[in-house]
Amino acid sequence: MTDNSNINNNNDRFRHFDSMIINANVATFSKEYGFHLAKQKDDNAELYGQLFDAAIGIKDGRIAWLGAQQDIAPHLHDYSKANITDAKGGWVTPGLIDCHTHLVYAGNRSNEFEARLHGASYQDIAKQGGGIVATVQATRDASMDDLLAQSEKRLQALLAEGVTSIEIKSGYGLNLETERKMLQAARMLADKYPVHIRTTYLAAHALPAEYKARSDDYIDAVCDWMQVLHSEGLIDAVDGFCENIAFSTAQIKRVFDTARALDLPVKLHADQLSNMGGSSLVAEYQGLSSDHLEHLSEADIQQMAAHGTVAVLLPGAFYTLRDTTLPPIDTLRQYGVPMALSTDCNPGTSPLTSLLLTMNMGCTLFYLTPEEVLAGTTVHAAKALGLNNKGKIEVGCDADLVIWDIARPADLCAQMGLNPAQHVMYQGQWRT
Amino acid sequence: MTDNSNINNNNDRFRHFDSMIINANVATFSKEYGFHLAKQKDDNAELYGQLFDAAIGIKDGRIAWLGAQQDIAPHLHDYSKANITDAKGGWVTPGLIDCHTHLVYAGNRSNEFEARLHGASYQDIAKQGGGIVATVQATRDASMDDLLAQSEKRLQALLAEGVTSIEIKSGYGLNLETERKMLQAARMLADKYPVHIRTTYLAAHALPAEYKARSDDYIDAVCDWMQVLHSEGLIDAVDGFCENIAFSTAQIKRVFDTARALDLPVKLHADQLSNMGGSSLVAEYQGLSSDHLEHLSEADIQQMAAHGTVAVLLPGAFYTLRDTTLPPIDTLRQYGVPMALSTDCNPGTSPLTSLLLTMNMGCTLFYLTPEEVLAGTTVHAAKALGLNNKGKIEVGCDADLVIWDIARPADLCAQMGLNPAQHVMYQGQWRT
Ligand SMILES: [Zn+2]
Ligand SMILES: [Zn+2]
Repeated sequence: MTDNSNINNNNDRFRHFDSMIINANVATFSKEYGFHLAKQKDDNAELYGQLFDAAIGIKDGRIAWLGAQQDIAPHLHDYSKANITDAKGGWVTPGLIDCHTHLVYAGNRSNEFEARLHGASYQDIAKQGGGIVATVQATRDASMDDLLAQSEKRLQALLAEGVTSIEIKSGYGLNLETERKMLQAARMLADKYPVHIRTTYLAAHALPAEYKARSDDYIDAVCDWMQVLHSEGLIDAVDGFCENIAFSTAQIKRVFDTARALDLPVKLHADQLSNMGGSSLVAEYQGLSSDHLEHLSEADIQQMAAHGTVAVLLPGAFYTLRDTTLPPIDTLRQYGVPMALSTDCNPGTSPLTSLLLTMNMGCTLFYLTPEEVLAGTTVHAAKALGLNNKGKIEVGCDADLVIWDIARPADLCAQMGLNPAQHVMYQGQWRT
Repeated sequence: MTDNSNINNNNDRFRHFDSMIINANVATFSKEYGFHLAKQKDDNAELYGQLFDAAIGIKDGRIAWLGAQQDIAPHLHDYSKANITDAKGGWVTPGLIDCHTHLVYAGNRSNEFEARLHGASYQDIAKQGGGIVATVQATRDASMDDLLAQSEKRLQALLAEGVTSIEIKSGYGLNLETERKMLQAARMLADKYPVHIRTTYLAAHALPAEYKARSDDYIDAVCDWMQVLHSEGLIDAVDGFCENIAFSTAQIKRVFDTARALDLPVKLHADQLSNMGGSSLVAEYQGLSSDHLEHLSEADIQQMAAHGTVAVLLPGAFYTLRDTTLPPIDTLRQYGVPMALSTDCNPGTSPLTSLLLTMNMGCTLFYLTPEEVLAGTTVHAAKALGLNNKGKIEVGCDADLVIWDIARPADLCAQMGLNPAQHVMYQGQWRT
């Protein structure tokens, strides 16, 4: 928090900003401005924690002031025009946050997409070395330069739509060397682009061929590599895939115990294809999030609510897999579990690099409200990444902001294919 | 057709191009290169009418030569580098064609989108003046400048993805003055942007309030206005909405008879919500296309096949309306009816301005193959607009071309949110 206690009671408080946004409608997603989770369907009064005719003052990369346009208007002559951005009645939201991606990978599986539409089964494709095996092979084979060049096209597409924070998982290496290469690539992207990147170690994603029928041995290796890569500063969180086609809860528990010993937060791919208790498990470990959740039970939801674990919904995978089992949205609402929404950007089940389209899918496929999908890519996505200072607009938060050329926030999820992002600010700096 | 018969047998034929594309893989969609409609599912040999390691010569806005890279390589020194574009192994397709849009309109209905997700019914919204009525009111109220400013954002989004031809319908005026304004706006967009625009007169879209319970009188007016607007050079084709919530086949027949007398081609919104025989009707009038088609019957398909009427599929509306009745794709295949694919860009049922996403929906929701969806936005979309010289790459056709940064054509429909269009040529000129 910036210390503004001593300037709040005189006019000097308007002379200390590095930059300002004026004439804006602001979707704050802040409790201070009335945003809250549980809401009557017909209670539109406090949607988005919205403030009309507002202005925002920014200092040292953070939000230093937020209030009525009329309060700041008399002080604008103290500033040069270069430091003032006129939103002209447009909307400002927090920078968007994509909290679940597999964005760093090499290769391309559109050949499988095409083969399936010509009648090939998933089994046919697996027999020919397709599926995740193909991506693991391509990612192992890729040079760092190649891996970066392929991955940054996807990152650029997300950034163009106002994304200012993103999570990137490993999990296509499945050996120490390539898991490291993926996490290093994510760190290098963070150095190169104006975006906050959180890395997640996901070696417990699939069983590599060299460990066939030795999944417990593989989990041993996953835990050993975690210690090595953590000591290299490459891991911000730990993830796994808990499913009958992947790893059991007992195996995931061992991964989580190792993470706990290293003081690393955990999350889980859980309850996508069946209910194995994964969401309850990750909640018991005070996990950041449980992700997918088509087969989540009420008991799991109670655990998540009790431990503050965010539900991350991935409608791009639901759409691509032509799934028909909806996540239990109403029960999540009932227990007040925060719902985040993410692209799940990956080469197989969700080849998706648009968070705006993801929001449209959240509304159209999951019947979420526009406020819910926008909270799901701002304040709740921040919570899913453990970022308390992002995803909302209030004094003291990071100045990650987007000015949109829209009539109302719902435009961001009602339209497909338009990108109304006009100006994007990351940590107080406008992206050029 | 350019006359190249006398230069085809000597090396001079390589010295007459205005520009060239080299080192390209070309998806020609031309029968000359093996593209054809009816195909075994496992017959990939002639997919896309593809030519590998090819080059294209362009002269006077048309394709003047198409052949092997090795044939042109010895002649490249005759050209300045400025006239040669190296595709570097990327793919070239015909410019994309969006053959069914309501892109010119004013206003925005994201408020209705939001209200429905908060529990409002379509009836609630209609009572409050929502639905198409809201768009008609906003479009009537808008100045030409406003209408253009709002519409061109949508056009720009389509153009950025390699669209070089687009159809734009009237139908939110429902009076002479505003139908004229919409068609004039479409003509003005054609003057301003490097894109071919076909206008379609769709006053028979909905019954305006001032004609309540007098739909036959309204059809009289629609026919009168058609003659006026045609005399002003504003109409390229005539369309209607044949449905129990819109106009009967008898009423549409009167519209079509007027169009026939003016020598204007017809098309129809048919069989979206129910089967009323609309597709058979438009086929009997040698119509360009029948559009939507979720409830199309086999008898309709036989009529369409007999008269060369294109089936235009609109998966964006299917998706947005959460429709579950698929168009009869297999029967359309069986009878060899060409299928086109389009955004149906409109403010209510398909707020979609991405033809690439439309192709993804065609594959994911309608189980079309990548080749089918690409043919549906090139050669078959051209046929749906009566454009014999566009939508394919062969000597004599318009040089509307896109160079894509992709590994294979299926990338264009397997990914969501990436725009791999690198260079777009319209009538022989690169767009800057
Ligand atoms: Zn995932
Ligand atoms: Zn339409």
